[in-house]
Amino acid sequence: MTNVTMPMLETNPLEINFDRRQFASAIDSLISCSEARTASADTCLSEPMIAELAKCIRTNLDCADICQATARVLSRHTGYDANISRTLLEACIMACKSCADECERHADLREHCRICAQACRDCEAACRQLLAAMQ
Amino acid sequence: MTNVTMPMLETNPLEINFDRRQFASAIDSLISCSEARTASADTCLSEPMIAELAKCIRTNLDCADICQATARVLSRHTGYDANISRTLLEACIMACKSCADECERHADLREHCRICAQACRDCEAACRQLLAAMQ
Amino acid sequence: MTNVTMPMLETNPLEINFDRRQFASAIDSLISCSEARTASADTCLSEPMIAELAKCIRTNLDCADICQATARVLSRHTGYDANISRTLLEACIMACKSCADECERHADLREHCRICAQACRDCEAACRQLLAAMQ
Amino acid sequence: MTNVTMPMLETNPLEINFDRRQFASAIDSLISCSEARTASADTCLSEPMIAELAKCIRTNLDCADICQATARVLSRHTGYDANISRTLLEACIMACKSCADECERHADLREHCRICAQACRDCEAACRQLLAAMQ
Repeated sequence: MTNVTMPMLETNPLEINFDRRQFASAIDSLISCSEARTASADTCLSEPMIAELAKCIRTNLDCADICQATARVLSRHTGYDANISRTLLEACIMACKSCADECERHADLREHCRICAQACRDCEAACRQLLAAMQ
Repeated sequence: MTNVTMPMLETNPLEINFDRRQFASAIDSLISCSEARTASADTCLSEPMIAELAKCIRTNLDCADICQATARVLSRHTGYDANISRTLLEACIMACKSCADECERHADLREHCRICAQACRDCEAACRQLLAAMQ
Repeated sequence: MTNVTMPMLETNPLEINFDRRQFASAIDSLISCSEARTASADTCLSEPMIAELAKCIRTNLDCADICQATARVLSRHTGYDANISRTLLEACIMACKSCADECERHADLREHCRICAQACRDCEAACRQLLAAMQ
Repeated sequence: MTNVTMPMLETNPLEINFDRRQFASAIDSLISCSEARTASADTCLSEPMIAELAKCIRTNLDCADICQATARVLSRHTGYDANISRTLLEACIMACKSCADECERHADLREHCRICAQACRDCEAACRQLLAAMQ
């Protein structure tokens, strides 16, 4: 795989009032986090202790859907509306934080929860940075 | 099609601290709005005056993605997190309002824009009601 | 909620080589099935016997994603490509059948599995009808 | 962004009857292709010659939705069903090929179409390889 987010953003002819590198980095973190969440929900499903992981699975599914929608909205620059992007980033930060908190509770015992928690923290940080730049 | 949102919600064994009918109504509005947005973006694409509709298409695509993610999150009740739902509802209200405002500008000339604007206003109202009940 | 699928399709100015009513009916079944799957996966997560339902949850999640993507593709008529629609409908029919088979195994004990199985069978039938019309 | 697809797949305790590296590579190509499609549809929307690009935009939107659903399905291994994965891969191959063909028609004049066409061809190749391994 070649990463295409930044090359695509560089060819966009519109004026973008933010650091394109920061934008691309947030989008990549969101996409990567969404994929990690989908995979993690599935790995939890195959665990013998699945009943303990019900809340974790739900949080993973939410986080995957929210990160994916946000990545798509941030990838569009025609007729840009900063208010919608900001509110979505806030929802993402909350979902990533909640998911990381939940995953970290299981991270000692499960390697996939540790990887997941890290992807959530990275995504939370990237969203916070972009949100700060947008204020 | 038989509507299954309310029957599914009625069989959920969890305690849900809200009027299930209001919840189901918001989910149905979100799903319906998401479908209207996808169809509307496509109808705009086939218009001869497509260049005037670029912002409208973009807003439609955003609104479809945000409503869809929100419908999914609201359909989950295991390990419920009110803060995430509330922030997503706020993003939906903004996206639906922005989309309705844009569609209404073209509603005199285009019947599909009129239908779309109405679906957005209905969804905006249903999200506002649910958000108020969640406060 | 007012159903907007058929009104939106009626205002599409493009020539559509199929019965628009059949198209709208398939889209509505796909959307309804996708919502039922998301809700059902969540209800399974809250069951005490969750370990028995792992495969059921996974099938629900797949079916929700496939039905949703197919509903979106079928909602677009600009630059229509029948081969893509047909292959997606085939994937949907398989996913709905597989999900209905799995849900029916639990339908005696769980009302939500019975409702789900029915939504899957309805969607499978609507997809088969549209696929037959497209051949 | 750190790529998490392969690390997540390595921690999955289930038996997976395929080369995990090939699986992860296909998932990464699908995610990357989906993001490139969303960005490309938006860049087309901002072009002065938008009317010429209507079919290109539609194909981009379809391809984004199909690749995204397929990446999610391939990321699940609990209760795996090879038939569904295979049919979805076939739909992806068709959508990527159709999108690449369309983008290549504009690739001389537009750098973003050239990048997009390449991402589609990479994704088409990765899907073909995985499909061949699954037969």
